[in-house]
Amino acid sequence: MKVLILGGGGFLGQKLAKALAARRSLRGQPVTALVLADLAAPAALDAPFPVRCVALDITRRAAVDALLQAERPAVIYHLAAVVSGQAEAEFDLGMAVNLEGSRNVFEAARALASNPVVVFTSSIAVYGGEVPEPIEDWTALNPQTSYGTQKAAAELLLTDYSRRGFLDGRGLRLPTITVRPGKANRAASSFMSSIFREPLQGQEAVCPVGPEFEHWYLSPRRCIESLIHGAELKAADLGANRCFALPGHTHSIGAMVEALRKVAGEAPVARIRWEPDPAIQRIVLGWKARFNPAKALALGFRGDDSFEENIRYFLEDDLQPAA
Amino acid sequence: MKVLILGGGGFLGQKLAKALAARRSLRGQPVTALVLADLAAPAALDAPFPVRCVALDITRRAAVDALLQAERPAVIYHLAAVVSGQAEAEFDLGMAVNLEGSRNVFEAARALASNPVVVFTSSIAVYGGEVPEPIEDWTALNPQTSYGTQKAAAELLLTDYSRRGFLDGRGLRLPTITVRPGKANRAASSFMSSIFREPLQGQEAVCPVGPEFEHWYLSPRRCIESLIHGAELKAADLGANRCFALPGHTHSIGAMVEALRKVAGEAPVARIRWEPDPAIQRIVLGWKARFNPAKALALGFRGDDSFEENIRYFLEDDLQPAA
Repeated sequence: MKVLILGGGGFLGQKLAKALAARRSLRGQPVTALVLADLAAPAALDAPFPVRCVALDITRRAAVDALLQAERPAVIYHLAAVVSGQAEAEFDLGMAVNLEGSRNVFEAARALASNPVVVFTSSIAVYGGEVPEPIEDWTALNPQTSYGTQKAAAELLLTDYSRRGFLDGRGLRLPTITVRPGKANRAASSFMSSIFREPLQGQEAVCPVGPEFEHWYLSPRRCIESLIHGAELKAADLGANRCFALPGHTHSIGAMVEALRKVAGEAPVARIRWEPDPAIQRIVLGWKARFNPAKALALGFRGDDSFEENIRYFLEDDLQPAA
Repeated sequence: MKVLILGGGGFLGQKLAKALAARRSLRGQPVTALVLADLAAPAALDAPFPVRCVALDITRRAAVDALLQAERPAVIYHLAAVVSGQAEAEFDLGMAVNLEGSRNVFEAARALASNPVVVFTSSIAVYGGEVPEPIEDWTALNPQTSYGTQKAAAELLLTDYSRRGFLDGRGLRLPTITVRPGKANRAASSFMSSIFREPLQGQEAVCPVGPEFEHWYLSPRRCIESLIHGAELKAADLGANRCFALPGHTHSIGAMVEALRKVAGEAPVARIRWEPDPAIQRIVLGWKARFNPAKALALGFRGDDSFEENIRYFLEDDLQPAA
């Protein structure tokens, strides 16, 4: 089977591609080819099957159609998005990529008339507002960012397109993924990785919230496992809503810093500078921190066992020694 | 102030126009002009202020922009929609009108840069799936029709456009409005009016569900009061979600028929033919019947006191003697 990853140049797309190359199969069938698409064509990848890397702007409907018609993937990972901070700063771009772009992907999948599996990465940014906590599987989505709004609207379409048999959608609401490798980005949550990543790599980092700030986290390693598992689930097990929150863990920044100290000692902890940033706080304080992801747990998804584990995964999988 | 009603040719639009003509004011200011827009230009209306009737297809972005720029309404009622049965049968049309058309309206309102009040009629068709009942204000939207999906997605945009200060939105999830005047339409809920309206007007009607079928209802009279009240609320009182369920009442078809018998006697009851229709049942059995509309009640909205009241309102407001 052929697999397409939209957003294949991003850090999750790249890790997912490597995971597919390592496991060689998906949904009980051998992976015969992989297509990685992103705004700029992603870098090539060693794999036991052909890997094609293409440039694609998902806001261009005809280009999305052309790629899907040419490749006819059986599984489509739609990870392409403008991140939260940028979607808040550039509203029209966020709408074009995150909502219209997603619809272009779903329409192109529909046009295949083969009911392809579409794994869509949504986000816990869909939650907010006046709802009881913990967040349950039936809690209303009331996003307090444009990014969350666009993800929530795309989720609704994914479920309806699935109900109609246009595609076989699975929308996974990702916790904040920590510790992300690479560089800081314009996600408002970016600091939640950089305050661990940069100090572990010998650099300073700024924490814009206090140690009492609580949030919901998942490691990149478990996230990739979840993306694989999301494709492999039986459609019949998904019920009336194709979109749900993934398991994670609630940690305070203070407890996470203690985990850092436990795993890596005093030196990286001393490299964190605490500087409150009201613009970032305005976004992240509207996010929810406590979840009961019963549906995902019943479907066999799993979170991390402790934040020490997240730190160790980063050291094993992603540490880049300082230049 | 100038008021624009999109969907001004529909039964709610026409009733709302008449109510505005009768009350002459909205949000504490005199109504100085009314614009009624619909796919076909609505019929003229007696009013103490100028009424302009125009043809407008909300799927045409430039036409929506042009109308709003020319009229610069302070209050926009967006009632225009493809109804549930038609949106299920004609998916692309439903998406074009109910989702893209709504976005065209919100974008045109944003372009006014005057933060106009936008009252949007959503629907209890946004609810469905695996959620506990009664439906609370924080219950997830999991529509099981394309109509409900499109309304739910437009709701998310309305709240985000409001949060960003592009417009001042109020999204009212209407119960099924019963007894509707006029003719049956392609709403799956159409029978819930026709089984009362037609018999009261001397004609036969078909009931496609059994007497045990329960649903959530509001009379046209209280619905119009709610649309007026929705425009008059203070934005600051609306909280983080601009969209919420209106009060209604849960009735079984059997109890409603008993109310018909009580108000109008045996003759109209005998004109109801009971013929199960699986296509209609497939849609309406996925709808939720029990609600706790706490937010709307706290904001001063109200439902009907009994279904006898709904029948009497129809006889007073809308009865058309048989030709």
